Amino acid sequence: MYKNDFALTPPMGWNSFDYYDAAVTEADIKKNADYMAEHLKQYGYEYVVVDIAWYAHNSGADREHFEYIPFDTVEIDEYSRLLPDPKRFPSSQGGNGFKPLADYVHGKGLKFGIHIMRGVPRIAAAEHMKLMNTTATANQIAHPSSICLWNSDMYGVRDSEAGQCYYDSVIQQYADWGVDFIKCDDICDSRIRHEGEESTWHEIRMIHEAIMKTGRPIVLSLSPGAALIEKSWIYGRYANMWRMTDDFWDNYELLKPMFRRCEMWQDHVKTGCYPDCDMLPIGRIGKHFNQDRDTRFTYDESKMMMTLWCMFRAPLMMGGELTLLDEKTTALLTNDELLACLRGTAKGTQVYRDEKKACWKNVDEVTGEVRIALFNLADEDAVLSVTAEELNCGLKGNDALTELWTGEESAFDNGVLTASVPHHGVCVYKVSTWETNLQE
Amino acid sequence: MYKNDFALTPPMGWNSFDYYDAAVTEADIKKNADYMAEHLKQYGYEYVVVDIAWYAHNSGADREHFEYIPFDTVEIDEYSRLLPDPKRFPSSQGGNGFKPLADYVHGKGLKFGIHIMRGVPRIAAAEHMKLMNTTATANQIAHPSSICLWNSDMYGVRDSEAGQCYYDSVIQQYADWGVDFIKCDDICDSRIRHEGEESTWHEIRMIHEAIMKTGRPIVLSLSPGAALIEKSWIYGRYANMWRMTDDFWDNYELLKPMFRRCEMWQDHVKTGCYPDCDMLPIGRIGKHFNQDRDTRFTYDESKMMMTLWCMFRAPLMMGGELTLLDEKTTALLTNDELLACLRGTAKGTQVYRDEKKACWKNVDEVTGEVRIALFNLADEDAVLSVTAEELNCGLKGNDALTELWTGEESAFDNGVLTASVPHHGVCVYKVSTWETNLQE
Amino acid sequence: MYKNDFALTPPMGWNSFDYYDAAVTEADIKKNADYMAEHLKQYGYEYVVVDIAWYAHNSGADREHFEYIPFDTVEIDEYSRLLPDPKRFPSSQGGNGFKPLADYVHGKGLKFGIHIMRGVPRIAAAEHMKLMNTTATANQIAHPSSICLWNSDMYGVRDSEAGQCYYDSVIQQYADWGVDFIKCDDICDSRIRHEGEESTWHEIRMIHEAIMKTGRPIVLSLSPGAALIEKSWIYGRYANMWRMTDDFWDNYELLKPMFRRCEMWQDHVKTGCYPDCDMLPIGRIGKHFNQDRDTRFTYDESKMMMTLWCMFRAPLMMGGELTLLDEKTTALLTNDELLACLRGTAKGTQVYRDEKKACWKNVDEVTGEVRIALFNLADEDAVLSVTAEELNCGLKGNDALTELWTGEESAFDNGVLTASVPHHGVCVYKVSTWETNLQE
Amino acid sequence: MYKNDFALTPPMGWNSFDYYDAAVTEADIKKNADYMAEHLKQYGYEYVVVDIAWYAHNSGADREHFEYIPFDTVEIDEYSRLLPDPKRFPSSQGGNGFKPLADYVHGKGLKFGIHIMRGVPRIAAAEHMKLMNTTATANQIAHPSSICLWNSDMYGVRDSEAGQCYYDSVIQQYADWGVDFIKCDDICDSRIRHEGEESTWHEIRMIHEAIMKTGRPIVLSLSPGAALIEKSWIYGRYANMWRMTDDFWDNYELLKPMFRRCEMWQDHVKTGCYPDCDMLPIGRIGKHFNQDRDTRFTYDESKMMMTLWCMFRAPLMMGGELTLLDEKTTALLTNDELLACLRGTAKGTQVYRDEKKACWKNVDEVTGEVRIALFNLADEDAVLSVTAEELNCGLKGNDALTELWTGEESAFDNGVLTASVPHHGVCVYKVSTWETNLQE
Repeated sequence: MYKNDFALTPPMGWNSFDYYDAAVTEADIKKNADYMAEHLKQYGYEYVVVDIAWYAHNSGADREHFEYIPFDTVEIDEYSRLLPDPKRFPSSQGGNGFKPLADYVHGKGLKFGIHIMRGVPRIAAAEHMKLMNTTATANQIAHPSSICLWNSDMYGVRDSEAGQCYYDSVIQQYADWGVDFIKCDDICDSRIRHEGEESTWHEIRMIHEAIMKTGRPIVLSLSPGAALIEKSWIYGRYANMWRMTDDFWDNYELLKPMFRRCEMWQDHVKTGCYPDCDMLPIGRIGKHFNQDRDTRFTYDESKMMMTLWCMFRAPLMMGGELTLLDEKTTALLTNDELLACLRGTAKGTQVYRDEKKACWKNVDEVTGEVRIALFNLADEDAVLSVTAEELNCGLKGNDALTELWTGEESAFDNGVLTASVPHHGVCVYKVSTWETNLQE
Repeated sequence: MYKNDFALTPPMGWNSFDYYDAAVTEADIKKNADYMAEHLKQYGYEYVVVDIAWYAHNSGADREHFEYIPFDTVEIDEYSRLLPDPKRFPSSQGGNGFKPLADYVHGKGLKFGIHIMRGVPRIAAAEHMKLMNTTATANQIAHPSSICLWNSDMYGVRDSEAGQCYYDSVIQQYADWGVDFIKCDDICDSRIRHEGEESTWHEIRMIHEAIMKTGRPIVLSLSPGAALIEKSWIYGRYANMWRMTDDFWDNYELLKPMFRRCEMWQDHVKTGCYPDCDMLPIGRIGKHFNQDRDTRFTYDESKMMMTLWCMFRAPLMMGGELTLLDEKTTALLTNDELLACLRGTAKGTQVYRDEKKACWKNVDEVTGEVRIALFNLADEDAVLSVTAEELNCGLKGNDALTELWTGEESAFDNGVLTASVPHHGVCVYKVSTWETNLQE
Repeated sequence: MYKNDFALTPPMGWNSFDYYDAAVTEADIKKNADYMAEHLKQYGYEYVVVDIAWYAHNSGADREHFEYIPFDTVEIDEYSRLLPDPKRFPSSQGGNGFKPLADYVHGKGLKFGIHIMRGVPRIAAAEHMKLMNTTATANQIAHPSSICLWNSDMYGVRDSEAGQCYYDSVIQQYADWGVDFIKCDDICDSRIRHEGEESTWHEIRMIHEAIMKTGRPIVLSLSPGAALIEKSWIYGRYANMWRMTDDFWDNYELLKPMFRRCEMWQDHVKTGCYPDCDMLPIGRIGKHFNQDRDTRFTYDESKMMMTLWCMFRAPLMMGGELTLLDEKTTALLTNDELLACLRGTAKGTQVYRDEKKACWKNVDEVTGEVRIALFNLADEDAVLSVTAEELNCGLKGNDALTELWTGEESAFDNGVLTASVPHHGVCVYKVSTWETNLQE
Repeated sequence: MYKNDFALTPPMGWNSFDYYDAAVTEADIKKNADYMAEHLKQYGYEYVVVDIAWYAHNSGADREHFEYIPFDTVEIDEYSRLLPDPKRFPSSQGGNGFKPLADYVHGKGLKFGIHIMRGVPRIAAAEHMKLMNTTATANQIAHPSSICLWNSDMYGVRDSEAGQCYYDSVIQQYADWGVDFIKCDDICDSRIRHEGEESTWHEIRMIHEAIMKTGRPIVLSLSPGAALIEKSWIYGRYANMWRMTDDFWDNYELLKPMFRRCEMWQDHVKTGCYPDCDMLPIGRIGKHFNQDRDTRFTYDESKMMMTLWCMFRAPLMMGGELTLLDEKTTALLTNDELLACLRGTAKGTQVYRDEKKACWKNVDEVTGEVRIALFNLADEDAVLSVTAEELNCGLKGNDALTELWTGEESAFDNGVLTASVPHHGVCVYKVSTWETNLQE
């Protein structure tokens, strides 16, 4: 079993966070799974992911003051392992954990994912609770200053045999439930420390090893970002996805810097290894953040985002509520010609970038298809261009192109592709080098 | 009551940490108080300070692995206030707290100090314990990510009315016990955050205000360093001492940088405001660190340290065990002519410094006494000099001088004072400008 | 001669930069001196300062591309000393330098200042030119990587005897011309290096020493900021003013952070030592920046700025063209009751500050006058308040107050002073503690 | 012509710097080329590189004070292009440049390389000199603050058409001379600025494009380090080698951190893309640094270095004088079994690392050969081990191994390879997985 085989293309799916925050329920998950199976599965979307705090008893109960209530109680078994909150996940009662819900999702032909916080529960350390398969107790594997700065539920696990036992017992339980995808939080850029005992690099390895021991190909996704480029070798060795950015929301101030991030990480996109741009905050979002709203992105900005994510070959995790999808948002998610960029034979490369504009190409080495995106990063509409020479991928400079959002035909003019691009917008074209070459 | 009146000159005394680490007992404190009263009080030493972890039940019990045992139990009252461990401090039993021990110290004509960690006990937050004079509970005033990175006993207190109530109740208790000096830890450079809710700046103010409310002139000393120079206005407004350095030990690698630190802070030494160089690790130290030893400083290095501390006008807190003082170490602590630098009418100023050498002057504006120190920072012996012009304090350039460690007479030669100074050593001279001027 | 006697109160005057950029002429200077003598001298304004590039032959000639033309020619004497450009400063011809212009300004009962770049001219180093009173040549005292990042005219001077000779010869020339004020640039925060040979700390000392040798009390002002707080001891020892900020312009994004800067530096304001907020960009500014305009500050913002500068006791250097002053701008500059904050017996202190609001007090220790400013930093109007207890300066809590911009009477109510303050605005009050106390 | 084809394996050769500093001559180059052709070519060494300051007239003349004399004169043509100093490179006279010397080296079956500083000569900017194929002059393409902090010869070139013309003219001249390898300095980590106009990222691209225009496959090597990992995509796109470290010398304090650097860059070693560990400072070095000496590395340290460089697949540029090679040093350079790690089919990977030890594997994907190195980073001898499971490359755990420095046979014991490794030393083993698998 080889980690990079777990995700031969960038994972696609839906995650509960952008709409449900820390208060998602079993019913919410099921209806989104239903919708995905019926409407999106055919485009490649398959992961249904339960995000943060499924074990917390009062999560969301005092949302005005706290996203995560400090020193709250949690559902936990005798071996210091967290369980789903039975009020929000009724099928988990009686020791079932997430198995019934995972079965439901699998029954739809989809895959089931969960969010976890790295570490061992705070309450287990405070109360010196037991662990499975070791005589050590939770306080002994917990590092008291390896904390998450924004959530008080856990302590980091020390790099030790007993610590590995704990992680093995937790991940095996998830495998037994049928989990296909783990989004592990507070571990990609843990913020508390990047060196020494409180750093999290050993926990990435420990979780990876625990996954390998289960024999189940569980995709490992690391949060939050910004991932540290100098640790790329760790992410690439042990994980399938890692976040290039802190939480991403529907704000152009966050979208524009993604071009810088994608530039920096472009050579790190490989089979089984996907730098991650976070969820797609489009459609209907924000309900349990007490700001139920349509995305604040303009439609041009949404297209810019979808195009960059695809050209770069980032995972596509929809954040908006699926059951409230409208036609225009659906169109963003289901552009087959753009989704083709995610194929395992394709590779995305930045052609140029400055503060005003960027150009990317995505070349499929097998089909010879080339996709070219001209992004207008400025606050005014602009005419952008790129030359066949700059693209440097076998184009003749007289090639015919199709814009992928409008379907309009276009062409190189004397070796130059020129387009009027709206502010915060994109034009993205397809051309086939092989067809072009055959025409000659 | 005005904070700067609490310490008209740099505080002098003894602190238990360098010898007893986190395991000091009542008997240890008493015998050092006895010794101080008999042998050192006459030189100005007056504070006897119980350092860290006096409330912890098992402190020191697993010293090989931990200086402070994570998730340990502590002695605590119903209002979330820590009490002395009754095993180590028997007189504290029955709700006496440190009152009997403080009385004992006061009976010797000395002052009594204690170390505290900022914040509210971790266990109080975990168990949602009560606080005095407020309906809020400990979990509500505790900030879960405002932790100490090296000790798991406390959480920082939020900037709130209930938080102030808690600090008022704690500090009033200390005042009731007869505490004269509080060394508050994890607050001067808290390391977890320097901005935002987890920073500790508001806690400095809250503790200061709690002290003012007691009506007792309790000296407030902040640890650990390095203090942030950009926050000097906070330290100066609310505290009497603040550490310029992380823990200081008997290692020249730590001593040499003190020259840089003293340079930076030299203009911040004022009545009631003393940048602090930490304890004097001389004589016998290290017992409960499992390395009972004589100081590793050479005698020259010890003189260098004492001279710098005095020229700068730093607090003088002896770290070595007083009852084991030998003659040479005693001589370091009791050089009257050097201690004169600490007077309220004196001011220390760096004359020059580079990687090889430094020169300081200390001028008493009332008596006209000038003290001049030539420090050899290099690893080889050297001839150092300074001119009357550089000293710029009314010297004539033909003044007679006395070296304060040897008693040898010296003189300016044609406006230049020159000395052979051993490596890692110092020559320090006294001259009286008024005498000089009168001679003319 | 003692440096701190050169400026017993914060220097006040006018500087050519905000209106004339790098292209000011002799005629411009004269007409502003005329205006100051007639209209502003009575309020304490006295310095007339010729800002940057007075020696450059083509300064301003290609303003679209360059503020300072790279590799331009300059007016220079045989000893590597820069002279005024004779085209822009005709009276300087024939070796007069700035003497005739200084005489003119002095004739008006005012003082004359100039801007200089630290270092030795680039061209002098390139051509191995002579220096005065030393056999060394300019290339030998120039450090090739001690450059200014935004102006190519000079190289930093090495810490050497020959380097001191050069500075002595330059500053003596300025003294001979009758210069009263030197604004030295690229030296306070030089940006190229803060440690090592390329740092500028030694040049501050060298220039100070050169000034002392002239026997002329030339005020030394250091630019640009942000000054480094850890080097405050250097600024305070050798200079009279040092910039707390990079260039300040009429933009609230620059004004708001000045509250943070004033907070940090508040304890460093002393006689002869003035952390500097840069020029006052009000009235008519920007002409030779190719954007001749009225200030972009609202009138409330202008009052906020003037009030903060005065409460803090910053130097007041008008940036706008004096001959174009209107009545409202004049009122900003000539509020006697506010200017009283600058007296040598007054001291400014921040009472509180957060992101939304700030409060300062300015107390005259001799007259007992207290001034209290409530600043609304937020983008919405607000009701702000401060208690007599917070002010902690002898107020009774029933004191009568006068608002200094409107003249309206106000009062404490039950120990609380409350005011409706417009967004980006201020209310500032005067009260006399002595009068108050006498009333009792 | 594709950049990555210029160096199908890590370049090997000799560079003049470690022995000759900035004072190498034509005769020095020739005798080293002679030696390489006779003794080292057969092992793969082929590049003979003339390092820094070949154009400077007085380079080395005042070595006590300056490595590079500030504001020195240089040999330069009318188009602002530097030429070899005719005194040190007599064959260059008459406009020949390096052509005769390159021809000599080529005649030996070797390749010829030179060092350059990025940018346009300082003197050309100061004197507004001409450029080839453009009406712009040198002052117009020079950025005055884009300087090298340790060498005053050049200014950085602006990102402009005229700037590209200059670089084209310079690189074409090198191609005409027969240059095969350019080590461009002050460009990989330029230290002056990493963002904005003074940064050097555009100059890397400009030089690459100039090389591509020549049609000559000139290897591009970038100095100095440490290269910025966040700019890896730039190095990889435009260069063949880039320095992971500042200048590397014979000091274990520099060698040990190379393990951290190799860890970080391990996934960036690809065909045509080689993170570079700098020269091998072994044998006889230091002559023109005024410290002609044998390497200070112990023989164990030298083996550690050679082994790490090879396992990682770094370029191998000998720094010591070839004509003074002794037998032991020659053995370090010519270990065929270790040099096999450099093959294009091999890949190096770190297995583990902490402060005391490190383990690397190098696997040849075609031959199935595995090399395993156990490095002892500690200051004491140690027994180190690694398991077949950790190596994770098809070993059976009973495989036979040969140590590559001693030739001794060894074996896995129950899945564990164990070795006694001297402090600062290494044991490196070869095993063939295919042989192993065939045995089964």
